[in-house]
Amino acid sequence: MTTPSLPHVRLKPKANARAIRHGFPWVYDNELVTDRRTKALAPGTVAVLEDDARAPMGLVAVNPKSRIICRMLEPGGQAAPDEAWFAARIARALSLRERLYPAPFYRLIHAEADGLPGVVIDRFGDVAVIQPNAAWAEVYLEPLVAALREVTGIAVVIKNAAGRARTLEGLDDETRVLCGQAPEGAVPVEMNGASYMADLTGGQKTGLYYDQRPNHAFAARLAPGARVLDVFSHVGGFALAALAGGAASALSVDGSAPALALAEQGARASGVADRFETRRGDAFDTMAALAGEGETFDLVICDPPAFAPSKQTLEKGLRAYERVARMAAELVAEGGYLVLCSCSHAADLTRFRGACARGIGKAGRQGVLIHTGFAGADHPLLPQLAESGYLKALFFRL
Amino acid sequence: MTTPSLPHVRLKPKANARAIRHGFPWVYDNELVTDRRTKALAPGTVAVLEDDARAPMGLVAVNPKSRIICRMLEPGGQAAPDEAWFAARIARALSLRERLYPAPFYRLIHAEADGLPGVVIDRFGDVAVIQPNAAWAEVYLEPLVAALREVTGIAVVIKNAAGRARTLEGLDDETRVLCGQAPEGAVPVEMNGASYMADLTGGQKTGLYYDQRPNHAFAARLAPGARVLDVFSHVGGFALAALAGGAASALSVDGSAPALALAEQGARASGVADRFETRRGDAFDTMAALAGEGETFDLVICDPPAFAPSKQTLEKGLRAYERVARMAAELVAEGGYLVLCSCSHAADLTRFRGACARGIGKAGRQGVLIHTGFAGADHPLLPQLAESGYLKALFFRL
Repeated sequence: MTTPSLPHVRLKPKANARAIRHGFPWVYDNELVTDRRTKALAPGTVAVLEDDARAPMGLVAVNPKSRIICRMLEPGGQAAPDEAWFAARIARALSLRERLYPAPFYRLIHAEADGLPGVVIDRFGDVAVIQPNAAWAEVYLEPLVAALREVTGIAVVIKNAAGRARTLEGLDDETRVLCGQAPEGAVPVEMNGASYMADLTGGQKTGLYYDQRPNHAFAARLAPGARVLDVFSHVGGFALAALAGGAASALSVDGSAPALALAEQGARASGVADRFETRRGDAFDTMAALAGEGETFDLVICDPPAFAPSKQTLEKGLRAYERVARMAAELVAEGGYLVLCSCSHAADLTRFRGACARGIGKAGRQGVLIHTGFAGADHPLLPQLAESGYLKALFFRL
Repeated sequence: MTTPSLPHVRLKPKANARAIRHGFPWVYDNELVTDRRTKALAPGTVAVLEDDARAPMGLVAVNPKSRIICRMLEPGGQAAPDEAWFAARIARALSLRERLYPAPFYRLIHAEADGLPGVVIDRFGDVAVIQPNAAWAEVYLEPLVAALREVTGIAVVIKNAAGRARTLEGLDDETRVLCGQAPEGAVPVEMNGASYMADLTGGQKTGLYYDQRPNHAFAARLAPGARVLDVFSHVGGFALAALAGGAASALSVDGSAPALALAEQGARASGVADRFETRRGDAFDTMAALAGEGETFDLVICDPPAFAPSKQTLEKGLRAYERVARMAAELVAEGGYLVLCSCSHAADLTRFRGACARGIGKAGRQGVLIHTGFAGADHPLLPQLAESGYLKALFFRL
């Protein structure tokens, strides 16, 4: 039975209704009949999507201002989300994380694949940081947060509204505490035997990313006795895991002083500060300087920002990855290990691997690939969107 | 200085000398000048490869009977391999494995990526099983085995000559003990908290494959309290790891009685026999029968033989993978997990994932991908051959 209060939107005949029926979660703006009524819908309106023959397909969130004009909320669904609807999705997502992780530190909701399109929720124990990166999630923020608290028992919820995704949806960038008392200072997060410090309210991109956790763990297995260089270190993700795994020393390089300060704080909390150093500076300049000093390392990790965030920047981005690979390979001792990461959607695995192999070759080295890692299992993917799985970590032995 | 005793072979102008200089390890038969002299070379002859301008490129193994007519042994190399040459390669490979694994059970040599083209050596503690799957390795078996014993201290070396690769090289299929005393009965192998039984001399494909180790480990993390179904179970790879990880029960299905007997022996050695059952039969028939009985499982794993071993069999193979995914998905309880594996070279990750997603959809289920795994790090890859990395394991939540 259709709820009469929900508006209906309709696919054009040329839209790929079959793909949507098979689980593709988006409708692009050129696939939807955008009559005056649909254009007038407020961003984030929940509606019933119909195919071009007016048969209902499911519940969608509509944003006439976004190129992704509809996001599928529930195939076959016809009633607007309420707190119970959100609670069911959050409980399902929680059961996966509780199965995988011994402590409540993980990405709890990873958008489409967890049934909440555009919504990201990271959990840090008793604190949740929510990124409602699609308009509908702003509209339904109240039942969403109520369900989150109900299902998890979390006391503190912070809304983090930074980031490019919100701009594309035409949303504000206001970060604020939605409920509870925000923690003062950085929060300790235990992963892979190390303690990381996460600044959940600071505006300097000094939070914590969970996506690299399995790749940190693999690097830690290579670390015993190794001299480690962690370039684009941020708050010390790879360096601290390597030190906890038995590295002889680790040097973290990053351009951000606040990030390095958190890395040092984490090293103290992990009891490895005596083996940890930081160097603030541009990654390329610092790698060149280290090469000039004749330094080598047994394990070098480069986890740069997205050099190829879009198709337009792909070629330039691949050249930057090649350059990182070349400069980093020159710093790896004979028989040592090189970890090269990409968080670029546009650079797929084959292209990224090719750029890395070219860079290693240009450094006059031969590398074999011992491991390919992706984002952790708390970052699930719809198989229909898996090609764009953004994070890749390639582990080479030189 | 060129060793005068080694023959020279020469690339045709049309050959991709640049790719070979950049690390591609093979020359195909249509890329080499095959004059009478080259054609007359005994399979496995070591020679110096020249480019079309007669500049030496490196040391290669030649087999005029194989489509891969040259395999690169050493770029720039000009002297025939001796025991020290083998020892250096084995020592390098060993140092990677010793870093990664707490006990001496692993693939020690994985062919091209470990510098010994076509040669596979699996280590089971004090026993090595060597597959000299290229003609040159037969010719140099004596210094190779001497170096293996010298570097590792291994006492028993068994030559396993079964398998398709040797047929392509025109080699015999004689399996025999090269030195030491072969173990009587199956050998226990500890992995992921379980004990597996490996029959190293039996002719029934009842040895042990190390490649799935990290995927067994990931499945074990999903296993606590789960009812597990392991289809194409072989000697119980996934089932025993899941039971060691806390599964409530596991049922192994396989067509081979000797494999299931070893699985049962492994379950007893692992102390989990009371939670373990086996069912001998065709995988498809058994899945249909279980569905008919209304059975469901919290974790279902399907690790079938290569359905698409070659490009010619790709389409048929993908349909078989889709069918496996459909039948298996029907047996997964709501909110449960489905692990689908492929060891087909021809079915790349994108195609295999597509076939799995279609099968899951045809079962009327929705799946999200939580993890993609490949072969373990004791199966390194040349980046130039990485596209053909054969093993994929996709972990879905339904």
